[in-house]
Amino acid sequence: MFEYTTKFTVRYAETDQMGIVHHSNYAVFYELARVEAMSSLGSNYRAMEESGILMPILNIHSVFKAPLRFDDKVTIKVLIKKMPLAKILFEYELYTENGCLAHLGSTELGFVTKDGMKPCRVPAWFADCLRPFFD
Amino acid sequence: MFEYTTKFTVRYAETDQMGIVHHSNYAVFYELARVEAMSSLGSNYRAMEESGILMPILNIHSVFKAPLRFDDKVTIKVLIKKMPLAKILFEYELYTENGCLAHLGSTELGFVTKDGMKPCRVPAWFADCLRPFFD
Amino acid sequence: MFEYTTKFTVRYAETDQMGIVHHSNYAVFYELARVEAMSSLGSNYRAMEESGILMPILNIHSVFKAPLRFDDKVTIKVLIKKMPLAKILFEYELYTENGCLAHLGSTELGFVTKDGMKPCRVPAWFADCLRPFFD
Amino acid sequence: MFEYTTKFTVRYAETDQMGIVHHSNYAVFYELARVEAMSSLGSNYRAMEESGILMPILNIHSVFKAPLRFDDKVTIKVLIKKMPLAKILFEYELYTENGCLAHLGSTELGFVTKDGMKPCRVPAWFADCLRPFFD
Repeated sequence: MFEYTTKFTVRYAETDQMGIVHHSNYAVFYELARVEAMSSLGSNYRAMEESGILMPILNIHSVFKAPLRFDDKVTIKVLIKKMPLAKILFEYELYTENGCLAHLGSTELGFVTKDGMKPCRVPAWFADCLRPFFD
Repeated sequence: MFEYTTKFTVRYAETDQMGIVHHSNYAVFYELARVEAMSSLGSNYRAMEESGILMPILNIHSVFKAPLRFDDKVTIKVLIKKMPLAKILFEYELYTENGCLAHLGSTELGFVTKDGMKPCRVPAWFADCLRPFFD
Repeated sequence: MFEYTTKFTVRYAETDQMGIVHHSNYAVFYELARVEAMSSLGSNYRAMEESGILMPILNIHSVFKAPLRFDDKVTIKVLIKKMPLAKILFEYELYTENGCLAHLGSTELGFVTKDGMKPCRVPAWFADCLRPFFD
Repeated sequence: MFEYTTKFTVRYAETDQMGIVHHSNYAVFYELARVEAMSSLGSNYRAMEESGILMPILNIHSVFKAPLRFDDKVTIKVLIKKMPLAKILFEYELYTENGCLAHLGSTELGFVTKDGMKPCRVPAWFADCLRPFFD
């Protein structure tokens, strides 16, 4: 299993008139953590796009347990539990500063060629980065 | 079953560098359709908040079938298949102009009091609006 | 002078914890009105990008006079007061339902080639669309 | 003069189909830097709201010099050049990693009471935080 943890601070613009983080922002939080997680693997997200592979989102699941608020320092854990083939599943856990689990999420992404948007397999070099975590 | 259909046009700001609508915007599309659907029931969303009831999101599920692009005229259908009690489930279907099903989504919302954020039941007046669709 | 008026409804996601529209959304409002204004001229924004011309933003000025709130039906007026050459200046006026002027804005955009991002002049076909308004 | 410098990384969601950061995000960048700058002064933004003072935006000016791109590590400098009274002017300079000035901005904010939204003066405790920088 691959696991990566990072932190972010809730922005004012991410709140809504309920006084909490608007739910549409969680997909953005997943993404910033996913990008960092991939960088930590030596697999730059930008490099992947420049090499001609895009990773479109196939599905998202989100469970809201406790609200996040402006200026909260949030810890987000990214998990990959299975070696990817044609798809890759990322799971997310968001914790507030006092360790409370505020949110659970997952996103499944495909691999497609930038030219033609055709589905393809996980690039070999990215699979190589991940393999050590699944032996 | 309650069903409501509306349309929106994809904004430039909603695209990303893949040239398609960024996935975080779909929750916003659900919301604008849900707000309109509730208005059509005579149950103004703003009125609900002003009467002291908030409707926080409990969970979201999204399945991406085909990308949406800038300036697409999208039809979104909102479905309520079951009378709500403590929670209400909205389902969404998004269609492109040529009738292609591009996206499926659902959001479950709770009812909570604005003062104290305590869970409560669907307000009687809103249940009354919905009942005709479930007889 | 060219003038175009359209309407939009404030989305819940556009509010912040002050209970008003977050200021970062106004640039998005300008854009949706600008896109529609250009369509009304027979000059599709999407067509312009597909023909190889991008219109990057050079500067933005915004004056906030009265807040907008969730579900407000806002009228936005787009003005072009001068024939464009290398740049085009759009001005915006936002009115609430009771006719109150809530906001003033302007954006200046350049014309650049998609390949190479080199500055260029207003495309002839777009100038032709605008000319009748400046005679 | 008060000066504060921080950094942020461009998020994927902040790009648009031109492949650059969408211009509506710059107001969000200003805000995250402003919030941090105020924290550094010992004047927590959240505390200000909790103490009953809101700081609505009065106007924004933005000049775009060079585009920002996904995953750019951006340095943003916040400047207050004048002691605030009824209003406070923040200026912003955004630099890319190689030290290129990419963007200039400014926002003027008012002080209003949360109850009644009445204009008021800069709170004394905040003025006290700033005074050392203007002697």
